[in-house]
Amino acid sequence: MSAPRGFASDNYSGIHPEVLARIAAVNAGHAPAYGADEVTARAVGLFREHFGRDVEVFFTFNGTGANVTGLQALLAPYEHVICAESAHVNTDECGAPERFLGSKLVDVATPDGKLTPDLVASVARGWGDQHHVQPRVVSVTQPTELGTRYRVEEIAALAEWAHGRDMYLHMDGSRLANAAAGLGVGLAATSGEAGVDVLSFGGTKNGLLGGEAVVLFRPELAARFPFIRKQAMQLASKMRFTAAQFEALLTDDLWRRNAAHANAMALRLEQAVRDVPGVAVTRPVEANSVFAVVDPAAAEALQEDYAFYVWDDRTGEVRWMTSFDTEPADVDDFAAAIRRVCR
Amino acid sequence: MSAPRGFASDNYSGIHPEVLARIAAVNAGHAPAYGADEVTARAVGLFREHFGRDVEVFFTFNGTGANVTGLQALLAPYEHVICAESAHVNTDECGAPERFLGSKLVDVATPDGKLTPDLVASVARGWGDQHHVQPRVVSVTQPTELGTRYRVEEIAALAEWAHGRDMYLHMDGSRLANAAAGLGVGLAATSGEAGVDVLSFGGTKNGLLGGEAVVLFRPELAARFPFIRKQAMQLASKMRFTAAQFEALLTDDLWRRNAAHANAMALRLEQAVRDVPGVAVTRPVEANSVFAVVDPAAAEALQEDYAFYVWDDRTGEVRWMTSFDTEPADVDDFAAAIRRVCR
Amino acid sequence: MSAPRGFASDNYSGIHPEVLARIAAVNAGHAPAYGADEVTARAVGLFREHFGRDVEVFFTFNGTGANVTGLQALLAPYEHVICAESAHVNTDECGAPERFLGSKLVDVATPDGKLTPDLVASVARGWGDQHHVQPRVVSVTQPTELGTRYRVEEIAALAEWAHGRDMYLHMDGSRLANAAAGLGVGLAATSGEAGVDVLSFGGTKNGLLGGEAVVLFRPELAARFPFIRKQAMQLASKMRFTAAQFEALLTDDLWRRNAAHANAMALRLEQAVRDVPGVAVTRPVEANSVFAVVDPAAAEALQEDYAFYVWDDRTGEVRWMTSFDTEPADVDDFAAAIRRVCR
Amino acid sequence: MSAPRGFASDNYSGIHPEVLARIAAVNAGHAPAYGADEVTARAVGLFREHFGRDVEVFFTFNGTGANVTGLQALLAPYEHVICAESAHVNTDECGAPERFLGSKLVDVATPDGKLTPDLVASVARGWGDQHHVQPRVVSVTQPTELGTRYRVEEIAALAEWAHGRDMYLHMDGSRLANAAAGLGVGLAATSGEAGVDVLSFGGTKNGLLGGEAVVLFRPELAARFPFIRKQAMQLASKMRFTAAQFEALLTDDLWRRNAAHANAMALRLEQAVRDVPGVAVTRPVEANSVFAVVDPAAAEALQEDYAFYVWDDRTGEVRWMTSFDTEPADVDDFAAAIRRVCR
Repeated sequence: MSAPRGFASDNYSGIHPEVLARIAAVNAGHAPAYGADEVTARAVGLFREHFGRDVEVFFTFNGTGANVTGLQALLAPYEHVICAESAHVNTDECGAPERFLGSKLVDVATPDGKLTPDLVASVARGWGDQHHVQPRVVSVTQPTELGTRYRVEEIAALAEWAHGRDMYLHMDGSRLANAAAGLGVGLAATSGEAGVDVLSFGGTKNGLLGGEAVVLFRPELAARFPFIRKQAMQLASKMRFTAAQFEALLTDDLWRRNAAHANAMALRLEQAVRDVPGVAVTRPVEANSVFAVVDPAAAEALQEDYAFYVWDDRTGEVRWMTSFDTEPADVDDFAAAIRRVCR
Repeated sequence: MSAPRGFASDNYSGIHPEVLARIAAVNAGHAPAYGADEVTARAVGLFREHFGRDVEVFFTFNGTGANVTGLQALLAPYEHVICAESAHVNTDECGAPERFLGSKLVDVATPDGKLTPDLVASVARGWGDQHHVQPRVVSVTQPTELGTRYRVEEIAALAEWAHGRDMYLHMDGSRLANAAAGLGVGLAATSGEAGVDVLSFGGTKNGLLGGEAVVLFRPELAARFPFIRKQAMQLASKMRFTAAQFEALLTDDLWRRNAAHANAMALRLEQAVRDVPGVAVTRPVEANSVFAVVDPAAAEALQEDYAFYVWDDRTGEVRWMTSFDTEPADVDDFAAAIRRVCR
Repeated sequence: MSAPRGFASDNYSGIHPEVLARIAAVNAGHAPAYGADEVTARAVGLFREHFGRDVEVFFTFNGTGANVTGLQALLAPYEHVICAESAHVNTDECGAPERFLGSKLVDVATPDGKLTPDLVASVARGWGDQHHVQPRVVSVTQPTELGTRYRVEEIAALAEWAHGRDMYLHMDGSRLANAAAGLGVGLAATSGEAGVDVLSFGGTKNGLLGGEAVVLFRPELAARFPFIRKQAMQLASKMRFTAAQFEALLTDDLWRRNAAHANAMALRLEQAVRDVPGVAVTRPVEANSVFAVVDPAAAEALQEDYAFYVWDDRTGEVRWMTSFDTEPADVDDFAAAIRRVCR
Repeated sequence: MSAPRGFASDNYSGIHPEVLARIAAVNAGHAPAYGADEVTARAVGLFREHFGRDVEVFFTFNGTGANVTGLQALLAPYEHVICAESAHVNTDECGAPERFLGSKLVDVATPDGKLTPDLVASVARGWGDQHHVQPRVVSVTQPTELGTRYRVEEIAALAEWAHGRDMYLHMDGSRLANAAAGLGVGLAATSGEAGVDVLSFGGTKNGLLGGEAVVLFRPELAARFPFIRKQAMQLASKMRFTAAQFEALLTDDLWRRNAAHANAMALRLEQAVRDVPGVAVTRPVEANSVFAVVDPAAAEALQEDYAFYVWDDRTGEVRWMTSFDTEPADVDDFAAAIRRVCR
C-alpha cells in the first residue's frame, strides 16, 4: 500500500509517530464529545502559549474548512475577499468559499504569490457603492502556494493597510510552521503579532493524521464561531483525537522540528539540482518546495519513478515538495535521477 | 482525561483497538492524497461486498457532512426533503442542510421517529406549483433518533411510495450497524436492497476515530459527487487513514460485533430498570439506547456520577445510550444507581 | 384580455387610477436611477409621516423580496425564524428564504394563522447549543393568510416576548392596509408602534402595478440594507416609478380607501352567504377574504364562472378574496351564484 | 422632479409613451396572476416571432435577476462562469451571482470588453479535477459594457468553442436591441441563431418602466425555470403589466426605433466631439455610448450641468450614454459644453 516517499505533496506523508502515540494515549474511556473534553482544553492552552493568551481556537477537519469558517467570521455575503490569483482559496477549494460564504473572491495576479498593499489597493474599490461587493478581508497564504514567504514587516504592512480601511487580515497558514521555521521565529511572529486577525493553522501537512485550527486573534469573534463551524459541517464529535494531534504538534517543538526538516530537505534538493543543465529553478526556496522548469519529456520520465506535480503545463514548471519524513537519501536519489534524466 | 464510561452518547467512546491498529498499519511511507490510494480502493471493495457490487462510496468527515452531500446528490435547491420532526438533519445539524442545499426541510411529527407513506403523503404537496418547493426526497434515520428501527418491509414501502412519485429515498444510517445487528440482517438489507437510493453509513459512533461514508446505490450519481464533496469541505487529504478505519470496521464483521454488543448492553440496562418504580421506559429498545421518564430530581442526582442527556425537559424523558465499549459492569453499576435514586 | 372581476386574489386586480396617473406624472425627462431621485425622496418622506420620522424605507419588487431582505437584515444563517405553518414565507415563496438566507424556518401550527407568545415559546429552544439553529426572529403576517388579524396588544405581546430574549419581531404586511383599515388605526399602530422591528409593507395587492417596501424601525439596520437588497436582486433602476406608486398610495389616504373598500366587500359577501345552506363560513372576516367550506362539486360548478382558490382540498375549504376594485354588484352576483349552486 | 436629459445612463430615462399606453390599455378588470394571463401569452408569442418559434420566455424584474436565473438554468454550484473582467455580472451586481448560484465567476481581462475563444481558453482549466470548479458557461455581454459589439461570427465562434466542450453560451443582452439595430440585423441574429443558449433580453434600458426577459433557446431548460425564478424572488404577481411592456416593445419594431435612435445620438455626439482638443475618444462607438478621456477638471466642470459617469478615475475615462429619448438638441448642447470646457 505504501508508495515510496516522493515529492508530490506534504499530504502524501503519513502520521508522525509522536502524533499517533498521542492519539493512542488519549484513547481510554469516555470523553465528552464536540470539544468539551480535557484534551481539547489542554490543546487550546498550548495554542495560547504559542499564539497569545487571548486567542480563541477552534479545530476543523481540513484546510478548506478552516479557511471558509475563518473567513465567515469576518465578512457578510455582500463583502469580498482580496487574495492572490494563486491562493488556495481561489484555485483549489472547488468554489467552497463562494458556495458557503456567498461572497466574491477578488484575485490579483502576483509575481511570487505574495500580496502587497499596492497590489491589494489596485483591486479594492467601490466602497459605499451598492452595486459593488464591499472590500472587507485581505487573505494571504504564509508561506505562499509558490513556496515564498512573507517577512514579518510585509505582513505588518498589509495588516496596517487593511485595518486602516476597516478591513481584516486573514492568513491561510496551512504551512505556517514551515514559514516560521524558515524565518527562525515563533508561530505568532508573522501571524497574530504582525496583525493577522484570523489564522488557519495547518496540521495535516506537518505530520498530523488530519486536523486544522482556526485561531481567532480577536476574541470577540468567538461567540458566533461554534455555530459557524457546526453549520459548515466542520465539528468533530470525538474532538479529543483532533486535539491530541495538536497537543503533540505543539509539544517539544514538534511543529518546528518537522517543518525545519522539510525545509532543509527542499534546500538540499535545490542545491543538488540548481546547476544541472536543463533544470531552471524558478523561485526562491523559502519553505518546503522547489519549483523548476524542466523539459516536459524529462518531467514525464521522472514521474515514472517519482510522484510530483506539473505546476503549469504551459511553461513546464514543476513542483517538488518535501515533507517531515523525507530522508536525505530520498533527496539524493531523486536529485541523481533528475541529473540523469535532464542532462 | 478519560472520563468513566457513561451513557451520554456512543460518540463519547474512543477508538476500537482494531481500528487504531489498522490506522497504524497503513502509516508507512507516502500514499497519494484525496483517495487515489490503495487503502481507499480496498475499503471501497469491502463496501461493495457488503452493499452490492455496483455501489459507489465516498468518505466524509462527519455525519452532517455525509447527510448534506448525500442529499445534495439528489435534489435541487427548490426541491424539498421530507423527514421526521426528530430527524438529526432537522434538529441537530445547526441548519447545515438549509445553508448548503438552499432547500427546505419539511418535517412531520411521528409517534416513534419513524416515517410511513401516510405520514409522508400528509406533507407532500404542491407538485408543479411554482410557489411551492417541490417534493423530491424522503429521508429516514435507521435506527431512528428515538432508538426505534424500521423493518425491511417498512423501508421498502417508503421506497416504493417515493419512487412511484419520481422521488428518492435517503437514509441517515449513522447507526445503521445497530439496526442491522438488531434485525440480524446484513447492512444492505434495510438500505440498498430495500430501495434506499443514498445512504449515510456511520462509522464514528461504532468505534472509529472519525469517518462516515456516503453510499450511492445509483451509480449514475457518482460523476458529480467528488465536486459536491470537495465544495462541501468534506474531502480528506490523507484519505488512507479514513479508509483504513472502514477497512477495519468491515473486516471480520467488526461492525456487527461492536453494534451487537452495544445493543445487548442497552437491553441489559432496560431489563435491569424497567420494573424500577419511578422509571418508565418510554420506547421499545431496538438499538443501543434506552429512553425513560424519570423524576427530574432523580435525573439530576444521577448525572452527578453518570453522563447522559435529558431528551425532553418538558416530559422528563431521558436517553441512556450504550456503546461498543460499554461493559456489563458499567450497566450493572448504573442500573444500581438508578434503582437507588429513583426509588 | 381582461377577465371579469373574480374572487381569486387581490393580485388579480389591476392598477388603481390614481396610481397609474402618478406613474404618468413623473414620466418626464431623466431622473437618477436606483433611488437617488426626488420622487423616491418624497415617497420616503410620506412613509415617515405614516410610520414615524426615524424609519428607513427601501422599495423592493415583490413581497417575497421584501420578506427575504427584511429578514436578512435581522439574522445570520445559523439563526432561525419562527413563523406560523400557514405563513407565506413558509408555504408560498418556493424556499426563497432558505435559499437566500441559508436559515431554517421553524413553523408552528396555529388555529387561526396567528402566533402567540406561548406558541412561539413551544418551538424556541436550543439557545447556546451549537447543534441547534438559534432563535432570532419571530415573523408574523398582518392580517394573516387566513384573513384574521392581530390586535395591537397581541403584536405588542409578541414584541415584548421577542425583545426580552434578544430576538426581533418581523411583520409580513403585504396586506397591512387591510388590517389597519379594519381596526380603524394608522399603519404604524400594529407595526412599529407595537414593537415590530422590520416590516414588509405591501403595495401590489392594494392597487399598485407592483412594489413593496421594507420599513426598518431600527434605523441602525439601514447601513447594510442597500447591499442586501442589491445582492438579493431587488434593486429597481427606474426607482422613481416604484416610488411614485407609493406616493399615490400614501396620499389622501388612498391606502385606507382601497383597503376599507375591499374589506367592506368581503363583509358584504360573508353576510350574503353565511346563512346559505351548504355554505359554512370558517373564519372571522377581518380583512378582505372569506373562507368557507362548500361541497367540492359546488365549488367546481362555481369556478366555471368565477375565479377563486380551493384553500384546502382535504376539507373543501375555499377562499373568496375581494379587492380594491370589487364592485358591490360583483359581490351580489357572486353571492347569488353561490346560493344557486350550494342549495 | 424631472432632471434634464443627461448622459449618465439609459436607465435615467423614463417610459416610452407607447409602452405606458400599453400598460394603461391592459389595466381593465381582473387577470390571472403570475403569468397565466392573456397578455403574457401574447407577449411570449411576439418573442417567438423575433427569436424563434421554440424559445421559452420568462420575465424577470431586472437585469441582475435575468442574468442570475438564466445562469442558474445552466450550471451547478461547483461549475463556473467565464466572463470578461468588465462584465456587469462581475462588477455591478453586488455579488448576486456568487450569492445565489454559489458558483465562482472566472473573469478575463479584455482589451475591449469582448471575449474570444482564445481568451476563454486561457482561463478554462481543471476539467475533471475535484479541487477545481468546472468550466460550464461562457457569458458575454452584447453590446459590451464598453460600448463595443460582437459580430455574428464572433458569437458563433464562441458558441462553437463552448458547445465543443460541453459548455454553454450565455448572453447578457440588457442592450441587445442596440447591438442588433447597429448591425442592422434581427434580435436573434447575434443571440439564438448564433448559438447562444440562454439570453437576458433587456427592456428597461430601452424604454420600459421595468422588465427583462430570460429567453431559453433550449426549451428543455424550461421545466425547472419557473421554480428557479420564484426562488430567486423574480416572479411578478401582476405579470400582465410586465408582459404589456414587452408587447409594446416588440410591436411595430419599437425596440429597433428606440435603439437605433439612441445609437444615432451617440454617433452624433462622437462626431461632434472627436476633433475637440482635450477629448480623446477611446473606443469605437458601436451602441449608445461614447467613451472618452478628458481632463478630470473638465469632467468635473461638465458634471455641474450634465449627469454622466467617470468610468475609470485612474485614466480619466468618462462614459457618455444616450437613450431612446435623447434629443438632437440635447446632444448639440452637450457637445457645445464639452467644446467650451475642454478647450
